[in-house]
Amino acid sequence: MLGARGGWRVLRRCPSSIFSSSSSSSSSSSSSSSLPREQRAPAARLRVRQALGAREAAGEVQVQGWVRSIRAQKEVLFLHINDGSSLESLQVVADPSMESRDLSFGSAVEVRGKLVKSPHKMQNVELKAESIRVVGPCDALSFPLKAKDRRPLEDIRQFPHLRCRSNALGALLRIRSEATAAIHSFFQDNGYVHIHTPIITSNDCEGAGELFQVETSNETRESAEKNHFFNGPAFLTVSGQLHLEVMAGAFTHVFTFGPTFRAENSQSRRHLAEFYMVEAELSFTESLQDIMQVMEDLFKTATSTVFSRCPRDVELFHKYVAPAQKTKGRLDQMLKNRFVTISYNEAVEILKQASQTFAFKPEWGCDLQTEHEKYLVQHCGEVPVFVVNYPYDLKPFYMRDNEDGPQRTVAAVDLLVPGIGELCGGSLREERLPFLESRLQRLGLADAYQWYLDLRKFGSVPHGGFGMGFERYLQYILGVDNIKDVIPFPRFPHSCLL
Amino acid sequence: MLGARGGWRVLRRCPSSIFSSSSSSSSSSSSSSSLPREQRAPAARLRVRQALGAREAAGEVQVQGWVRSIRAQKEVLFLHINDGSSLESLQVVADPSMESRDLSFGSAVEVRGKLVKSPHKMQNVELKAESIRVVGPCDALSFPLKAKDRRPLEDIRQFPHLRCRSNALGALLRIRSEATAAIHSFFQDNGYVHIHTPIITSNDCEGAGELFQVETSNETRESAEKNHFFNGPAFLTVSGQLHLEVMAGAFTHVFTFGPTFRAENSQSRRHLAEFYMVEAELSFTESLQDIMQVMEDLFKTATSTVFSRCPRDVELFHKYVAPAQKTKGRLDQMLKNRFVTISYNEAVEILKQASQTFAFKPEWGCDLQTEHEKYLVQHCGEVPVFVVNYPYDLKPFYMRDNEDGPQRTVAAVDLLVPGIGELCGGSLREERLPFLESRLQRLGLADAYQWYLDLRKFGSVPHGGFGMGFERYLQYILGVDNIKDVIPFPRFPHSCLL
Repeated sequence: MLGARGGWRVLRRCPSSIFSSSSSSSSSSSSSSSLPREQRAPAARLRVRQALGAREAAGEVQVQGWVRSIRAQKEVLFLHINDGSSLESLQVVADPSMESRDLSFGSAVEVRGKLVKSPHKMQNVELKAESIRVVGPCDALSFPLKAKDRRPLEDIRQFPHLRCRSNALGALLRIRSEATAAIHSFFQDNGYVHIHTPIITSNDCEGAGELFQVETSNETRESAEKNHFFNGPAFLTVSGQLHLEVMAGAFTHVFTFGPTFRAENSQSRRHLAEFYMVEAELSFTESLQDIMQVMEDLFKTATSTVFSRCPRDVELFHKYVAPAQKTKGRLDQMLKNRFVTISYNEAVEILKQASQTFAFKPEWGCDLQTEHEKYLVQHCGEVPVFVVNYPYDLKPFYMRDNEDGPQRTVAAVDLLVPGIGELCGGSLREERLPFLESRLQRLGLADAYQWYLDLRKFGSVPHGGFGMGFERYLQYILGVDNIKDVIPFPRFPHSCLL
Repeated sequence: MLGARGGWRVLRRCPSSIFSSSSSSSSSSSSSSSLPREQRAPAARLRVRQALGAREAAGEVQVQGWVRSIRAQKEVLFLHINDGSSLESLQVVADPSMESRDLSFGSAVEVRGKLVKSPHKMQNVELKAESIRVVGPCDALSFPLKAKDRRPLEDIRQFPHLRCRSNALGALLRIRSEATAAIHSFFQDNGYVHIHTPIITSNDCEGAGELFQVETSNETRESAEKNHFFNGPAFLTVSGQLHLEVMAGAFTHVFTFGPTFRAENSQSRRHLAEFYMVEAELSFTESLQDIMQVMEDLFKTATSTVFSRCPRDVELFHKYVAPAQKTKGRLDQMLKNRFVTISYNEAVEILKQASQTFAFKPEWGCDLQTEHEKYLVQHCGEVPVFVVNYPYDLKPFYMRDNEDGPQRTVAAVDLLVPGIGELCGGSLREERLPFLESRLQRLGLADAYQWYLDLRKFGSVPHGGFGMGFERYLQYILGVDNIKDVIPFPRFPHSCLL
């Protein structure tokens, strides 16, 4: 076995003394690792994105990345190098003598040379190589990704550790990163305090059965004391809302953006066992419309930011991954118009008058099914639709009674969007102690939620909030059919790879 | 029971027609909630922070918040209103006739009036009240927080749903929010892609026994099929590193910032069962110093940003919560100087030559204990100290062999800081397939980590990264003794409140 960097190939056309010194220093890891950067070769190290945005320049630059294409002609060797900083790769023009067996699709390389004006109109500059070093070869036979291979997202899902190197997943994860930043900025710019709501909770919320339970792994399973780590059963959170309400009682406007969990045995293209939710809570809010305005502003601001910050990545989806869905045109239109609002009452009337036959007959008091949501969105012109004021009995205990009849409707809102269905859900919360207390008592939950009732005893304020499914948001703005393709490592029934 | 807003008290001195209309609309929730804001009273709604930064102005403003102090004099009623947007409260000056039984410490109020120049030098403006509405009274007898009560952090920990309304926790959580934003910005400004590494993982990393296991809560416990949700055992993540390495092979520079878990039965002031970790991974990095430079830059940039963005909140800690620790002076000094670096070899020599007697005798090959870390930091002058190149056998399989002897040391680094001990840990990762393969084989892990070996077969690159404990970071920069006081909802053995 060779020394630290002995396995690396250095292919050089014009070895300069500087480069030699760098090369020799990097052949001995112990000396190399103790040298500060300034003492090494002075070539400016550029990310591919920086190089693509640069102008022709005299100085030597160094670019590192993975080979996305290789084309050897008689007089010249063309490479495309990608380092994940952008969808576009940097074209490298080299002398054919620099080709080697290890230089192949997928191999990692370090290229030194000069940025020169490119004759191609698609790019400003290209890198004229003075040396190409193969940092890590790629076993082409067993590498599941192939050059110029446009495999469906579903296909590459079976390689969770490699699919991020494809154009589509690369673009997706850059967009996801930008969208995350845009959402954080939206709230911070508007004076919200960011709260890390807990992941493990003793709250089994709403008594829903679809929870993951947490135990220490080295416990004796049979032991009756199995929940002793926390002195009681503990679950993975399904929502940070109740904890955010605590915080809205101190900071007025708060948000959280983190993982939430459902142990639902669903293989649908819209469900995951682990997914991300953006949640906000606003105190001193008496109107559901205030909440809806924040939902709409958040959606539009984040989407405009993402579209302007990574246009090429977004274009990949709109043009190539989901062209049939005309997502781009629909979204541009949507960003210009106000979202539509209808009441649950109106929704049921629309559904009852529909010529379409539904598997579930629309009826006041019943939940809207996916088929109903789809119809409503269609009916309103394939635009986002707020449905407000749902039946009291359909919704959880914390939603605010509208008092339009004895426990008839609550101030709840769902945002339905084309192709996805429910993207956001929100409500005003019941801030009136007697209303909340009697509802919790009827449900037998008053003891468990004593702390929640406390919030209504000490300076209670009208408040409300909402949650937005982050993966569904990405699906919607990019036209991605399956939710498993918009998260780095999807978790769903029977699958927890890596 | 009264109607929607019937319970609210409206105390008015000069009722204007505009205000009356708002007041009457808000007494009926159904009409109020459908009115867009523009149709309501035109008073500018200001957060306390905005009001405090404003100048004297003619127009009417509206401020909402909670009463932090109340002082009735013969001629004038003084209130301090806080809404969590800043540590400082807004002084309200009102006519004594506006006092009422419900207006007390902790009650929620809406005040309308004009911002006028304040005679006090500590504040620019005060709010001359034209009306005070008690939005939600506060049951003063049972409210555990009291006016002007400076209770120790430990005391208020027993009220997880109310402690955020204290000055100390309020300041803490605003700082936490700003620090989170600063860390995100640091990475984004430097071209890192943000990755949501998974929370549930099939990886039991390093075979450590301190894992939480995840199961669906409605499973038959006795059933042998209890792990069927994911077709195998699933755990809460202890680190996103391995998943980040996947991503560093596509995006070069990546980071994650999310919850991590340890089922450790420790009641120490530096451990939690659920805590946040900032982790970064860098491809094309041959030197541990490159990693250390990022750690140092991250620390300094985030800290400077937090200090400049919430000076008053930070001051509360440095002056009142932990004045004895002289955190402020030490940190200002630290921000100016380079962190100290010593090798593990040197560390052991320093410890051996110490006059102090240790409970654990310092010996090459043994882990550094808390007492050792403390001594080393002291020895170096109470500054952050990088300790590099640890014994091979002490560290996990993925760390890079320095080849300074047969499996003698690895390129690992820990950052030790005063009062805390280990704040960050990092390393170069073993990118050489044969080295990694043989180590995994010796550990019997080669099959489980086939995917991880794959990363070394397809364009492997020298890379490294680190993790920083976010709560310890906050403890360090603020001088907070107990880690339970720097997270909104602490989880530790025997405790998972709310």
